[in-house]
Amino acid sequence: MSSFFGIGLAGCGTVGTGVIRALERNGTLIQQRSGADKPLEIRRILVRDAAKARHNSVPQELITTDWQALVHDPEVHIVVELIGGTSLAYDIVAAALKLGKPVVTGNKALLAERGAELFALSQEHNAPIHFEAAVAGGIPIIKTVQEALIGNRIKTMCGIINGTSNYILQRMAEAKLDFGTALEEAQKLGYAEADPTLDVNGWDAAHKAILLATLAYGFPISPSLVHVVGIEQVKPIDIDFAQQLGYVVKLLAVIREHDGGAIELRLQPSFVSKNHILASVNGVFNAVAVHGDGIGEALFYGRGAGEDPTASAVVADLVEAARVLAHQAPHRGFLPWGSEGRLVPVEDTSTAYYVRFDVTDRLGVVAEIATVLAQHGIGISGTHSPVNPENPDADFVDMVFLLHRCPYGVLQAALREIADLNCVNSEPVVFRIEKI
Amino acid sequence: MSSFFGIGLAGCGTVGTGVIRALERNGTLIQQRSGADKPLEIRRILVRDAAKARHNSVPQELITTDWQALVHDPEVHIVVELIGGTSLAYDIVAAALKLGKPVVTGNKALLAERGAELFALSQEHNAPIHFEAAVAGGIPIIKTVQEALIGNRIKTMCGIINGTSNYILQRMAEAKLDFGTALEEAQKLGYAEADPTLDVNGWDAAHKAILLATLAYGFPISPSLVHVVGIEQVKPIDIDFAQQLGYVVKLLAVIREHDGGAIELRLQPSFVSKNHILASVNGVFNAVAVHGDGIGEALFYGRGAGEDPTASAVVADLVEAARVLAHQAPHRGFLPWGSEGRLVPVEDTSTAYYVRFDVTDRLGVVAEIATVLAQHGIGISGTHSPVNPENPDADFVDMVFLLHRCPYGVLQAALREIADLNCVNSEPVVFRIEKI
Repeated sequence: MSSFFGIGLAGCGTVGTGVIRALERNGTLIQQRSGADKPLEIRRILVRDAAKARHNSVPQELITTDWQALVHDPEVHIVVELIGGTSLAYDIVAAALKLGKPVVTGNKALLAERGAELFALSQEHNAPIHFEAAVAGGIPIIKTVQEALIGNRIKTMCGIINGTSNYILQRMAEAKLDFGTALEEAQKLGYAEADPTLDVNGWDAAHKAILLATLAYGFPISPSLVHVVGIEQVKPIDIDFAQQLGYVVKLLAVIREHDGGAIELRLQPSFVSKNHILASVNGVFNAVAVHGDGIGEALFYGRGAGEDPTASAVVADLVEAARVLAHQAPHRGFLPWGSEGRLVPVEDTSTAYYVRFDVTDRLGVVAEIATVLAQHGIGISGTHSPVNPENPDADFVDMVFLLHRCPYGVLQAALREIADLNCVNSEPVVFRIEKI
Repeated sequence: MSSFFGIGLAGCGTVGTGVIRALERNGTLIQQRSGADKPLEIRRILVRDAAKARHNSVPQELITTDWQALVHDPEVHIVVELIGGTSLAYDIVAAALKLGKPVVTGNKALLAERGAELFALSQEHNAPIHFEAAVAGGIPIIKTVQEALIGNRIKTMCGIINGTSNYILQRMAEAKLDFGTALEEAQKLGYAEADPTLDVNGWDAAHKAILLATLAYGFPISPSLVHVVGIEQVKPIDIDFAQQLGYVVKLLAVIREHDGGAIELRLQPSFVSKNHILASVNGVFNAVAVHGDGIGEALFYGRGAGEDPTASAVVADLVEAARVLAHQAPHRGFLPWGSEGRLVPVEDTSTAYYVRFDVTDRLGVVAEIATVLAQHGIGISGTHSPVNPENPDADFVDMVFLLHRCPYGVLQAALREIADLNCVNSEPVVFRIEKI
């Protein structure tokens, strides 16, 4: 047995580099949490052009252009496929599975189009395929459906699962842009690729929806049977009317089980009530709303793509692959693993605050309170003192101060002093104003 | 080896009954998905009063009042603890672990207060404790933190994790109720228990926050060090002012890693900007917003409690416990397992619709279109025809129809006919109006 779990990384673009950096940054933490007795280590990296300049975290000595050498390397126990496409990627994944090596992939097109063949190989050679990174990297929706919802019949899944088109639709709505202009803007900001075809024609999202539906209902789905409409034809006038009518236009994947067991699966720009939580999913974020017969309604929200979120999904899959490979103790870890941690005392925790005083309304009240706050170094961002229209001359009033961020202990000291002022009639009421 | 995974169910209240019913309802589906070669079967049920009337799904012959008999039963391979409290529950869990039997529990108080002892036993006897049901049953937040986020440093977690107090605060805000009245209402509706102490004093949520922080940071946390404020002292006037100032009052758990590694952990009613997605979490729903160094911001939303959502979490843990027990093939399942599934053709899928026609504005246009729709059995829920203020007499106008729910194929047939009307100038634009 090796002293490590060896990884063969096929593809070293954005996500591949993210995986290398995540293992470099959090490798020790990951091993502590998982309780594994050996680390995850990258042993080979497949690239197309060995001479290309790369992030300096990428170990040059591991680079190869020979995919067979990577897959067959005895020190490669787990193969990560991040090169995309459905031909070379297929060959690599199939070869790894045939050798009994678990595969981690983020390739939704490969699994949606050739998944049936690959899952059959996976079963035959008892080598799992992990693909959390294939759908909404920043949301563990695959794990959620596969594991957490295993006891549920899935009634519906509705998702915004393409960040590029979501960003474009949002910009069309808020800045009254036409499709072409919004797409150009997204490309300039790096939210859309040079070739945005699969994002805007709906197929990137459709491939993800096919994977979700396959997970939920367990049968292979031919892409040619799925109804897919992209956002290229969406016109500003319709977005405008949608807004007037109380809707937001979202590129929506809809998966629904009908009575009798047949599955509805489609993808198109749709109107969503602006009061629904999915309408608030903006920019490059993704979200999937699930209705199960056990859990009821749930929603999972996070970043759909990008180096770090997708790498996070790959790393989670690597840990799971290693855990399975090791056939080791059943512990998933995350037990308390040390005794060095400590809590911040509440006095040292800082937020902004809302404080309401019950004061006697006489000359100088605001000045007296503000002076004490200033002496303690606490800034005031606003005050609020509602007038009682029934009795504008009332002797007692509620006086609200909004305070800048400061440690809770400092606030408490100031409030103790203020409580001693004879204009203050009772304990002040304090709420934290959270910046999340 | 038995021909089943035997379950000892300690406690047969709401959640226990939910587990029995979920296995009854979805047992076959669960086994198909998990790829297990034998089913999960309840073998013993521990209750306090054997004579009490129960749901007719509860098999009377399995009932016992002797917890030792349940734990030691050789046909009980997994022990599910759902009786609550921290004394008898502790004895049962500890005894099971000492026998090497995995435990599934929803008991947040037990784990928050005596978790260190139990996790040590778990490690010593190599028997895992699964506790997804202990925090927000309808959100797989435990699994998400333990597994999906294993590669992330957790920077913050902010959560609404007590549905009862969230409901009470919401009702105080929207119906201008005082705390006592809102609590009574929640009790009448079954959203608060007869003894609501732990819900309204913040400790139910605090126990959950302790578990989340322990998972994220890996050290035992003494409840006595945690700053906990409940909602009993929240006054309508402050909720009112919060609203005027653009905030919502939420009972919020805040967990944050400081520079240097110390952990901030506190629980209190707080103001949250009404624009933040957490502000939209209403009623008995829970949500946890997580910021990790890999995934960035993510949010997980679902039901916090209740028979079915909590039972769903228990069932997921049972499947995982059985999978580990079996030391079986690495497959987690959820592969395509059959070939009988089928897709609903898009023509047979129904929603409401928004349809925009480019029409020549002459007498009778609306009537002609409406007549065709009626002939196809499609109801109209509204029309919308914007006036061009620059040119109120323009010859061409956009005419919007909002249509009742109907199959897409029926709509298409009607639209084909309408396209032949000579008042219609181009292909109509169609959006689905989703009801999620």
